[in-house]
Amino acid sequence: MKTKLQIVKIGGNIIDNEQVLDVFLSDFSQLTTPKILIHGGGKLASNLSDQLGIKTIMNEGRRITSNKDLDVVTMVYAGLINKKVCAHLQGKGCNSIGLSGADANSILAVKRAEKPINYGWVGDIKKVNANLIHLFLSNNMTPVFSAICHDGNGQLLNTNADTIASEIAIAMSDEYETELIYCFDKQGVLANVNDSNSIIKHINKKSYQELKINKTIHEGMLPKMENCFHALSNNVSKVIIGNAQVINNNKEVYTSLTL
Amino acid sequence: MKTKLQIVKIGGNIIDNEQVLDVFLSDFSQLTTPKILIHGGGKLASNLSDQLGIKTIMNEGRRITSNKDLDVVTMVYAGLINKKVCAHLQGKGCNSIGLSGADANSILAVKRAEKPINYGWVGDIKKVNANLIHLFLSNNMTPVFSAICHDGNGQLLNTNADTIASEIAIAMSDEYETELIYCFDKQGVLANVNDSNSIIKHINKKSYQELKINKTIHEGMLPKMENCFHALSNNVSKVIIGNAQVINNNKEVYTSLTL
Repeated sequence: MKTKLQIVKIGGNIIDNEQVLDVFLSDFSQLTTPKILIHGGGKLASNLSDQLGIKTIMNEGRRITSNKDLDVVTMVYAGLINKKVCAHLQGKGCNSIGLSGADANSILAVKRAEKPINYGWVGDIKKVNANLIHLFLSNNMTPVFSAICHDGNGQLLNTNADTIASEIAIAMSDEYETELIYCFDKQGVLANVNDSNSIIKHINKKSYQELKINKTIHEGMLPKMENCFHALSNNVSKVIIGNAQVINNNKEVYTSLTL
Repeated sequence: MKTKLQIVKIGGNIIDNEQVLDVFLSDFSQLTTPKILIHGGGKLASNLSDQLGIKTIMNEGRRITSNKDLDVVTMVYAGLINKKVCAHLQGKGCNSIGLSGADANSILAVKRAEKPINYGWVGDIKKVNANLIHLFLSNNMTPVFSAICHDGNGQLLNTNADTIASEIAIAMSDEYETELIYCFDKQGVLANVNDSNSIIKHINKKSYQELKINKTIHEGMLPKMENCFHALSNNVSKVIIGNAQVINNNKEVYTSLTL
């Protein structure tokens, strides 16, 4: 039987709130299975850009990444957030190792084509180095990934953290029974965006199509849902969407996804 | 016989000049022995502080590190510089892994006592995790350290890069025949600060005392020299001070130190 591996992605709402982050990291450090954390950047990168007079340009929720933007996200994601999270996890007894995709060639990406939209220094994942991640896990290290990858030719690339999480989960599924957990600001996918109690407890491919057609699932959630089903279609055992407390085992309310 | 290990520290003058850095990284990537790189921060951190309106306060060449300063050096050293260097090394075929001391608990530090001078979030090294570094090296990874450590209780600490280099060299000396190389802006220690050709080719403990007494070695060089002799006194086989080209084997001019 394969060993269970939990791959947890946290978004901006957790990163941006020190207290929420601290509780989350305590819960995460107490997970007894091997685990991997992937974090986004939250508002800190945009705040730093503002302070430096760099105009943030977003398209469909994704940052158009100029040279200066790349420096900012590299500083904030791979530097400030990643190292703070690692130091906090170390303080909680979790032997974390902070990584960008450039570190030990852990995630190779390719610069996104400039048509139809030129996103600048944005990358799409080409290969996750599963052997390397397995080496870390089997030496009791907990990888913590920021959303910065590289192209193998010296160039860093800004990469979507949700996609990093799903691609890592897929890559590790040969060796592990993988569980992919997306933590965001709600307890799960909502049937009614104005009612935070309207969690849809289960979504499969068929019901997802219906939720898309009747516009229950909104634009911003669509890429996340696509990542979920992509993972399930590629040997990831379990996919869950919930809030920061979902990794706490007592938590019953979340959205679970199946094919 | 022990395997040779080269520990190379580069300073601001190399980091700050893209072309010099690129040539250095090409030379470094071509070293055939196992190797470790340690980098300082150069002017980039102070430049970012200036842009953010954070006043940089230095005492004897060392940064008094407030909360905001710590964020800046974490972003610049552990983020921007470390990840750019790693991506460039990957592009040159060197499988680098960028690390802060918090990553996998690679370097544990202790906050410096607040008397006689309160340096803020500055750390002094307590323990280098030699087993971890050996694991990386024996799996064909080249560790690249930024000068950010942690205290094991969740706190990052700004740490002197020269000292990190010497402490790593010392810690690895049980397992390896270690060679510590400091690259700075001159070809070596100068007998006459106004004559860049006046390289002192050899310094031992005795001649060092004389050079101190007759003020040939200036204030800024003293901590570096202390690091060198500390390393030699603790089983490091060879210590060299030179410029960025000193790691190129054809280079004959540099300062070598012995006990």
